[in-house]
Amino acid sequence: MNTIKIGIIGAGRIGKIHADNLLRMKQVEVVAVSDLFAGPELEAWAAERGIEQVVKDSNVIMANPDIDAVFICSSTDTHVPLIKQAAQAGKHIFCEKPVSMDIKQTEEALEAVRVAGVKLQIGFNRRFDHNFKRVREHVQAGTIGQPHIVKITSRDPNPPHPDYIKVSGGIFMDMMIHDFDMARYVCGSEVEEVYAQGNVLINPVFAEYGDVDTAIVTLKFSNGALGVIDNSRQAVYGYDQRVEVFGSKGSVAVTNDHPNTAEISTAEGIVRDKPLHFFLERYQAAYVEETQMFIDSLLHGKPLPVEGNDGLQAERMALAAKLSSRLGRPVKISEIHELEETLQCQS
Amino acid sequence: MNTIKIGIIGAGRIGKIHADNLLRMKQVEVVAVSDLFAGPELEAWAAERGIEQVVKDSNVIMANPDIDAVFICSSTDTHVPLIKQAAQAGKHIFCEKPVSMDIKQTEEALEAVRVAGVKLQIGFNRRFDHNFKRVREHVQAGTIGQPHIVKITSRDPNPPHPDYIKVSGGIFMDMMIHDFDMARYVCGSEVEEVYAQGNVLINPVFAEYGDVDTAIVTLKFSNGALGVIDNSRQAVYGYDQRVEVFGSKGSVAVTNDHPNTAEISTAEGIVRDKPLHFFLERYQAAYVEETQMFIDSLLHGKPLPVEGNDGLQAERMALAAKLSSRLGRPVKISEIHELEETLQCQS
Amino acid sequence: MNTIKIGIIGAGRIGKIHADNLLRMKQVEVVAVSDLFAGPELEAWAAERGIEQVVKDSNVIMANPDIDAVFICSSTDTHVPLIKQAAQAGKHIFCEKPVSMDIKQTEEALEAVRVAGVKLQIGFNRRFDHNFKRVREHVQAGTIGQPHIVKITSRDPNPPHPDYIKVSGGIFMDMMIHDFDMARYVCGSEVEEVYAQGNVLINPVFAEYGDVDTAIVTLKFSNGALGVIDNSRQAVYGYDQRVEVFGSKGSVAVTNDHPNTAEISTAEGIVRDKPLHFFLERYQAAYVEETQMFIDSLLHGKPLPVEGNDGLQAERMALAAKLSSRLGRPVKISEIHELEETLQCQS
Amino acid sequence: MNTIKIGIIGAGRIGKIHADNLLRMKQVEVVAVSDLFAGPELEAWAAERGIEQVVKDSNVIMANPDIDAVFICSSTDTHVPLIKQAAQAGKHIFCEKPVSMDIKQTEEALEAVRVAGVKLQIGFNRRFDHNFKRVREHVQAGTIGQPHIVKITSRDPNPPHPDYIKVSGGIFMDMMIHDFDMARYVCGSEVEEVYAQGNVLINPVFAEYGDVDTAIVTLKFSNGALGVIDNSRQAVYGYDQRVEVFGSKGSVAVTNDHPNTAEISTAEGIVRDKPLHFFLERYQAAYVEETQMFIDSLLHGKPLPVEGNDGLQAERMALAAKLSSRLGRPVKISEIHELEETLQCQS
Repeated sequence: MNTIKIGIIGAGRIGKIHADNLLRMKQVEVVAVSDLFAGPELEAWAAERGIEQVVKDSNVIMANPDIDAVFICSSTDTHVPLIKQAAQAGKHIFCEKPVSMDIKQTEEALEAVRVAGVKLQIGFNRRFDHNFKRVREHVQAGTIGQPHIVKITSRDPNPPHPDYIKVSGGIFMDMMIHDFDMARYVCGSEVEEVYAQGNVLINPVFAEYGDVDTAIVTLKFSNGALGVIDNSRQAVYGYDQRVEVFGSKGSVAVTNDHPNTAEISTAEGIVRDKPLHFFLERYQAAYVEETQMFIDSLLHGKPLPVEGNDGLQAERMALAAKLSSRLGRPVKISEIHELEETLQCQS
Repeated sequence: MNTIKIGIIGAGRIGKIHADNLLRMKQVEVVAVSDLFAGPELEAWAAERGIEQVVKDSNVIMANPDIDAVFICSSTDTHVPLIKQAAQAGKHIFCEKPVSMDIKQTEEALEAVRVAGVKLQIGFNRRFDHNFKRVREHVQAGTIGQPHIVKITSRDPNPPHPDYIKVSGGIFMDMMIHDFDMARYVCGSEVEEVYAQGNVLINPVFAEYGDVDTAIVTLKFSNGALGVIDNSRQAVYGYDQRVEVFGSKGSVAVTNDHPNTAEISTAEGIVRDKPLHFFLERYQAAYVEETQMFIDSLLHGKPLPVEGNDGLQAERMALAAKLSSRLGRPVKISEIHELEETLQCQS
Repeated sequence: MNTIKIGIIGAGRIGKIHADNLLRMKQVEVVAVSDLFAGPELEAWAAERGIEQVVKDSNVIMANPDIDAVFICSSTDTHVPLIKQAAQAGKHIFCEKPVSMDIKQTEEALEAVRVAGVKLQIGFNRRFDHNFKRVREHVQAGTIGQPHIVKITSRDPNPPHPDYIKVSGGIFMDMMIHDFDMARYVCGSEVEEVYAQGNVLINPVFAEYGDVDTAIVTLKFSNGALGVIDNSRQAVYGYDQRVEVFGSKGSVAVTNDHPNTAEISTAEGIVRDKPLHFFLERYQAAYVEETQMFIDSLLHGKPLPVEGNDGLQAERMALAAKLSSRLGRPVKISEIHELEETLQCQS
Repeated sequence: MNTIKIGIIGAGRIGKIHADNLLRMKQVEVVAVSDLFAGPELEAWAAERGIEQVVKDSNVIMANPDIDAVFICSSTDTHVPLIKQAAQAGKHIFCEKPVSMDIKQTEEALEAVRVAGVKLQIGFNRRFDHNFKRVREHVQAGTIGQPHIVKITSRDPNPPHPDYIKVSGGIFMDMMIHDFDMARYVCGSEVEEVYAQGNVLINPVFAEYGDVDTAIVTLKFSNGALGVIDNSRQAVYGYDQRVEVFGSKGSVAVTNDHPNTAEISTAEGIVRDKPLHFFLERYQAAYVEETQMFIDSLLHGKPLPVEGNDGLQAERMALAAKLSSRLGRPVKISEIHELEETLQCQS
């Protein structure tokens, strides 16, 4: 392969970000984009970028033998069938998180990928953030010794629209899934048990959909470490994304990125600007790097930085958290299948 | 009262700190000190300070009608009988934490204090720390709106001696009890439920005594807020004492105190000195202030800053954490009596 | 103008950076590049980017009527003749700093630009840095009141090669010229007098060329404010670029950018990574923005963010500093012409 | 000597601070205090502390053979005669800065001390600050290699009362004298030349007394290092006391102390409290330590931490700055005597 030809499926905000990042890479061509709501606006957007084909039906992309890889950026419920279809068509796949909200379906999708022998990368963009990479590097290098405590704070500046909350899969599957992946990534160990607490403190609309807007989840890792993640759907001071790993030889902690380093000292106090507003600002470079590494893997046979199994493990943790929150007790990852069946029989 | 006459019971490290702080106050006289191991060394120490009486038997202090108030700084198992005795003798009481490791006994001690009409202050010194007071002030003033998430980190630089671990009452009653009080203090709300995770990651000696050296406890507050406390018996970089309260209008966070603000920039990186080493350095001023406020309350009828009930609530949380850790499930404060009885019957 | 056609003169490091930044902009075409040492390597570089013409002789660019604007990135001694030539050819000009090391020649170049009615932007890239822009914004907005003291620190990680030192024009004209512009930019006032101290503390080679490697220059501004700039050719901990403006209502200070926010706490201390290494890392986004604003000015008639006069004023300050250093006394900007003539007569 | 008996001369703010710090030390007795304005208030103050004698006339203290040492805290114009008198009386001396505003008088006072063989410590309290001591330690230990640049910022929260400005001796002798001493202290080298710039930007009253309220002074050290000090009489955000030493192997920088570490994050930005308000708050512990070291020197024969010569050198630098400001040119320390004579003849 000298050039990778890409089809983008789903041209929402994240699909467009990936397209723009890919368009800047040599050896990459974005040849087609599909979107259920494709129209003149998307066509103009594509024309400006020299993307030749704009379609509503993703089957057109799947059927195009020139296309080497697809970026699945459509809604979560479409991920599994699209992964299966792409795998059967022999196309490599970059898929946004989560693969699905149903562990068994995710497992089926991963099996299809395995059988087809294609590559599948999951869109856990935060692994490529300069801060979190540095945490991982120090833990891997042994700087802090054996990890004992992992702390992750992840708060959004604003809650999503109620229409989105309804279909989001809930805070654990939609928002904390990033933090579940982060926990595995920085600790270098699997999680065996989770206990989830949640409450509706920001907007009653979350309760209407059986969801919470504030949550704390504790983790037990296989290597003995303990962990805690806190999530809020609304931090009025902006996107709050911090990680700390504490161990036998010390700790490594990263805090937020700010738009500048300015400190204003006046009679009222010392002030600095709020953190970078949201994920588009904070993870701009991380989005570039994740697509670059996907392309590098296709071009040069390098290992993928995030694999299908990473998506699966994070989903298992999210499901365990959901069950824990519902049952009011800690839930082991090993018991989620059984619990789910029991609960489905009951309801 | 123009002058308060004080008797110190228990002249270990903390008893001596209180004595020295009291000796610097006008309108205070330290007239006697008792210690089971009183001898020439303690007599010299007392003589240097003009403390007239040194005895082994605390009954001498209790029987002295000139003494207005006692500082109970002896071992935890002596607190309850000494509180009762002091109350009956009409003496005001400053008692180190915890009052006891048995909720019922603590309740009895508090009842004796109530009946006698004396004052009882508990030694939760951290409430007087400049950082944590500022957190409390901002939460009380509404700066951060309604509290949603409370996060407390509390790590010691070194584990205690195994002899102490054995009688300490365990990490929840001995160490985290400070953080349980801190949670109530900064959040301004009672805790209804706790879930405790712990592990032995530092030294197997903790396991020998049925204790853990690393723990994460999550909290549910009456006002809906969620909380988390993490404890470690060994942070190699020094005493780590941080608090964050996040709410509807923002957050307030305090970090460690350092011996200086120096930043050294060399070819290797940017370095600063570790935090203040341990509680004697970090809480030096807090110890002065807690005794000052106790004396002010006696002299001027001001309300006590920490009351017997504060000691009781923290002990209830510690017991709930201990039970949670043993049962592997969340425990409500309201069920600790029943659970304890059940567990005692079983064993 | 719908598209701006650009010719790059001088394809060293900075010429290539500008080319790459321009190539990413819509409505911009880089049509030609000239370099005295053009050869197969540069041709390959250009081919990869779709730049059609690669020549040794800049006259080819000047003679091309399709070219709207030139980027002068060749050695400083060529700037003035190239500016004059481009102006006469009716081409807009982006010129790297300094315009020249001879005030009269710079004045002649500016006059040629004025007569021709073309636009000339000087490459003071630091004005576009997120931190320094924030300082300027706060000073302009009155946040800190009337400026009283301006402090600028600017230290390179490594000294340049001796060959470069020889032709650099000295620390004031080559390195501190950026800081002279910064002083005017953040203070919003002209400088009337400078006093320069310098010493050779890093490498004796600087003395061989009549140069210094360490310098402190103080400034008197027209608005009454005082200023100080310190320069070092070698900060072993990396590129050190800080600015502080102190005024009647407070101060605004910016410090360095770091590659991440990680803090490592170990038994040895608290460590963080060194600042971003050098100007390519620190000013990456600033380089993009300065070319974007130049293009915007051409396309939409917006005012230029840095004009020829800004180049001239900074050169006057640099010359005054050079004279001050030589004479061992403060030098007014208004006396530099006379002093220079006197000194030239003497030598 | 088993106990040091002290007489305090001058019971203003600083005299009282020293008295209170001395009263807390074992082996120290404050036996008398003199003040021109002694009256019932001072007598009450002394009585409360058990200081037996309160007089108006300092001769009473000088004549008391029981007194081992005096603290000279009266107005600057009285320092030299009091030092001479105390020296002749064989008493050790702690004298507030500056010794005098006249170099020759200071030299005479030092000679009297030398002849009498008594000890004289100057009140440069900032040397005992935890931050500045750490800077000095690192420079002495070679952490930053050879010093190249010394930067000192020193700004007061509020200007003094006009009555004080009138007799203060001017910003260089009254305020910057601390920074002149700091420069020598942290750099470990003498200063050979100074250049002073000043302006009246805060209050025209300074101009009435021939003084300035804002000043920048540059320094040349014997070891080749360059230095800069900036002073302002009014930093609205509070007491600003920072030092940085940059050298061949890196830099050490200290910033201000704050009353707490709290960071408040709201929709408006990230805020922290202003620095400790003024010298009483910032240098509280430093005042204790300077008196402790004076007493230790008397009791145990340890070397004094600040000697008469330190006072003299700082006064020479202050005088050079004053002359530089007046003459508009750099002034060498070696030429101040001659310059002063010349200027006195002229006026």
